[in-house]
Amino acid sequence: MAKGRFITIEGGEGAGKTTHVRRLAATLRDRGCTVLDTREPGGSPGAEQIRALLVSGDVGRWDVVTETLLHLAARRDHLVRAIWPALAAGTWVVCDRYADSTMAYQGYGQGLAPEIVDRFHALATDGFKPDLTLILDLPADRGLSRAWSRNPDRASDNNRYERMDRTFHERLRQGFLTIARSEPGRCVVIDASQDLDAVSAAIEQAVFDRFQTPALEPPPLRPR
Amino acid sequence: MAKGRFITIEGGEGAGKTTHVRRLAATLRDRGCTVLDTREPGGSPGAEQIRALLVSGDVGRWDVVTETLLHLAARRDHLVRAIWPALAAGTWVVCDRYADSTMAYQGYGQGLAPEIVDRFHALATDGFKPDLTLILDLPADRGLSRAWSRNPDRASDNNRYERMDRTFHERLRQGFLTIARSEPGRCVVIDASQDLDAVSAAIEQAVFDRFQTPALEPPPLRPR
Repeated sequence: MAKGRFITIEGGEGAGKTTHVRRLAATLRDRGCTVLDTREPGGSPGAEQIRALLVSGDVGRWDVVTETLLHLAARRDHLVRAIWPALAAGTWVVCDRYADSTMAYQGYGQGLAPEIVDRFHALATDGFKPDLTLILDLPADRGLSRAWSRNPDRASDNNRYERMDRTFHERLRQGFLTIARSEPGRCVVIDASQDLDAVSAAIEQAVFDRFQTPALEPPPLRPR
Repeated sequence: MAKGRFITIEGGEGAGKTTHVRRLAATLRDRGCTVLDTREPGGSPGAEQIRALLVSGDVGRWDVVTETLLHLAARRDHLVRAIWPALAAGTWVVCDRYADSTMAYQGYGQGLAPEIVDRFHALATDGFKPDLTLILDLPADRGLSRAWSRNPDRASDNNRYERMDRTFHERLRQGFLTIARSEPGRCVVIDASQDLDAVSAAIEQAVFDRFQTPALEPPPLRPR
């Protein structure tokens, strides 16, 4: 059986990751692929318990190294319990966030040195990287406006990052773009300021360009 | 203000760590030291929440790397929120388990390569080590018998390790002894098969030998 492919969708708050993970998974299923669509932090029972420690509470609840370690613990559990078995069974995996979010948020956003983040990643995941990463790029202001309109009651929402200031979110965006520039063979930047269907079409094109497998050819890609 | 000292007490199940942390803390307080007695995993509110994920559930609940990452996350929080501030304020810290337990349990016991455990430790704690580590050494069988008599209902107790087999506990013991041999300047092995008062006396002697400070001299060390 062919090994599955591991595709991650990355980007800041309000970039549309959740929507496009769902859409891409549906498109791949239409083409006959078995697909696991999942998210980080979480995606396995153990990782979801760790997620609960990460997404709630004060912005400063965890020191940046502790937070990185918790993300890595959740990621490792997700890999061991869900992603690696799925890939081994020939399932495609489409994941909302992965290691680039740790680099962007804890590294570029919160100041942990990128080489430290890299060393942590290598130890925690045996250096496991996606086959393709789609980075949904959007000016920080637009993403935050979208995220806030989705969660108007910011004081009680469960996303600590939406409450961080705009300079933090601008560092995130630049961090994701830096990652994309440093790994052009893995990463494709998608302009997420377009309308949803245009973003979906760009994502499908990037997936087709990367994996020109028979399974993905018929039927032809088309706008929804 | 003088910086506090960081003393850890290590060893396998049933070696008497909890009792001797309490006794050593009391002795140091008698000598005029301010003392924080604490334990791992846990010791700070965040680390206690991580502990809850670690101590319950099936033996195979977490992959060994995930488990190591959770221990490191708890340790980092404990250091940042409790141990480092205490030491900076001149408080002595006496801790039931620290990094040597990760090396013994996840490294020697569960097979994670010692150099990987070392690299994780360096990243997660900035390489922070105790001023003195007391390793309570006991044949694995005797420690397990003590632990089991304390927790006769092993199926429902909250210590996953007490349910592991004896060869695991023998590897633990040898692991702690290997650590002690490799860092003789930091570690002192204490024969924990002696009666409680003899073990306490040996611990107090080791602490006095290491930190010959005026604060520890009067009154003279004596058997209880």
